[in-house]
Amino acid sequence: MKKFNVAVVGATGAVGQELLKILAERNFPVKSLKPLATQRSAGKQIPFGGNTYTVEATTAQAFDGVDIALFAGGSASKEFAIEAANRGAVVVDNSSAFRMDPKVPLVVPEVNPEDVKNHQGIIANPNCSTIQMVVALKPIHDAAKIKRVVVSTYQAVSGAGKEAIDELTEQVKELAEGKEVVPKVFPYQIAFNLIPHIDVFADMDYTKEEWKMVNETKKIMHDDSIQVTATTVRVPVYRSHSESVNIETERKITAEEAKKVLASAPGIIVLDDPREKKYPMPLFTSDRDEVFVGRIREDNSIENGLNMWVVADQLRKGAATNAVQIAELLIKYNCL
Amino acid sequence: MKKFNVAVVGATGAVGQELLKILAERNFPVKSLKPLATQRSAGKQIPFGGNTYTVEATTAQAFDGVDIALFAGGSASKEFAIEAANRGAVVVDNSSAFRMDPKVPLVVPEVNPEDVKNHQGIIANPNCSTIQMVVALKPIHDAAKIKRVVVSTYQAVSGAGKEAIDELTEQVKELAEGKEVVPKVFPYQIAFNLIPHIDVFADMDYTKEEWKMVNETKKIMHDDSIQVTATTVRVPVYRSHSESVNIETERKITAEEAKKVLASAPGIIVLDDPREKKYPMPLFTSDRDEVFVGRIREDNSIENGLNMWVVADQLRKGAATNAVQIAELLIKYNCL
Repeated sequence: MKKFNVAVVGATGAVGQELLKILAERNFPVKSLKPLATQRSAGKQIPFGGNTYTVEATTAQAFDGVDIALFAGGSASKEFAIEAANRGAVVVDNSSAFRMDPKVPLVVPEVNPEDVKNHQGIIANPNCSTIQMVVALKPIHDAAKIKRVVVSTYQAVSGAGKEAIDELTEQVKELAEGKEVVPKVFPYQIAFNLIPHIDVFADMDYTKEEWKMVNETKKIMHDDSIQVTATTVRVPVYRSHSESVNIETERKITAEEAKKVLASAPGIIVLDDPREKKYPMPLFTSDRDEVFVGRIREDNSIENGLNMWVVADQLRKGAATNAVQIAELLIKYNCL
Repeated sequence: MKKFNVAVVGATGAVGQELLKILAERNFPVKSLKPLATQRSAGKQIPFGGNTYTVEATTAQAFDGVDIALFAGGSASKEFAIEAANRGAVVVDNSSAFRMDPKVPLVVPEVNPEDVKNHQGIIANPNCSTIQMVVALKPIHDAAKIKRVVVSTYQAVSGAGKEAIDELTEQVKELAEGKEVVPKVFPYQIAFNLIPHIDVFADMDYTKEEWKMVNETKKIMHDDSIQVTATTVRVPVYRSHSESVNIETERKITAEEAKKVLASAPGIIVLDDPREKKYPMPLFTSDRDEVFVGRIREDNSIENGLNMWVVADQLRKGAATNAVQIAELLIKYNCL
């Protein structure tokens, strides 16, 4: 089997670490690995596939000879993604920088795999909250055509990076010791609290996170007629985003049918047996690649309504796993 | 001013304690106080208004001579509320036992105060999640007529009582010490987790908590045409329920207008200035009687859509404060 020179940009962060873990887990055909990060992290040792690699500072030259560059996100994407593509690497980018660029495919392998074929050097990985939602929406859309989605999110702190994870742990400890909590990563205390504010505020007082769910969904699903409104909320959970998703469809779909099409769709586990107290929860979906769907109910407040509860590990399926799956598609479709 | 003989049933529980606190805070005209509870709690000493009272076991006879009996909720309501009313007390009941009884008014003083006049001995206090929602819905309904509501809740553990509060604290401690967590009150670990399951499962796989929001809203608002669908979720927050509320109205209401009517409505504080990071959060709304509304945004996914984020202390406005307000209305309207 052909092997590839792979660069991971942001290798020391929360998503970068997941990327390395998932490349190894899925036996991605790595010829050489180049872990890149900021100057501050250069020189760090990183284990991968039984060997140890030294983190290098990200520079334009670092991408020479690289076949696939997986960008974990952050400012490195704007600075280096185009440069990496110009030097011949195919970039899979987890930042929001290129997602809405019409020249850049925005891909969720369970939804629009063929879009990778149209890449011009960069493929964008969608926002974490969007990925898990569209995986669950796709089979419903295929079966009954989605007109409108009302989504409220319950997003884990790890979506804001490693320091956010530490911040939750520290705040809980400080509160137990009766100490004052001084928020650093989040605008307010997140321990035992909720913050209805993710990313910055933008048009119409929606946050960028909320707009991502609106706009990226249309692009990934290739359907501008799908109407989406979102409210995104940070919750004191370490890992896995949860979403309460209300759907209006063109044609009626019963809860029974919805369960059936979801259960047979790729990348989804239906966990829905109320009598047995079976429903998805963030605690039990972390470190998993699937999107978990439960609480599937007809919504009789409109003619063709459906409610569901969607939970997935946003560092894996919402970021790293999706990126590696895209890289796998690039190999499968011979697009490197 | 005339004073009244008041009984508080369930005086030692989370809601009962709030009832006593609020009766004192609001200088309710108490002639005599009778704190009642289960046999197990009888004999306990409870402070109120500078004096100390001894908790008595709840019996039918205990209601003789009582003018107002505030029931905190639980099984005591079914057992003793009718008995108390038969003995001449007016019951304000926080349980779900009588809420949908057509002979029993279901009252939120900011929404349908006049309904107390129709009581036949029992007035029901609505479910906590419903109370804070209808307080926020009423001004919108008056201004633009609500057709449909899609609500997702983020409910604090104190909604499940004192033991639930302790359970969250203990679980956080056990996890910090690397110990195994064994859930007792909640079906699963609630620390750093979400449980999309409040009260028991019922028709169409909705929980009773979800049906309460559907049915109680129609009754309180006197409008069976208001369609509601709900998804209710327990979150690791101590106090104050939060709700992501999506509204479709008959007539267009802009975010600006919505803010204006909400700000001038009774019992509401609009906290909505995204640039200044001002929005309601459970941590900062606890121990308050008002319903806090923020993240007020037009929802362009439909013609007349509106999103808002509603947070309130569910032990106070969602239970005890609302009950005492009802008792105050009974005095005001001369209905005792």
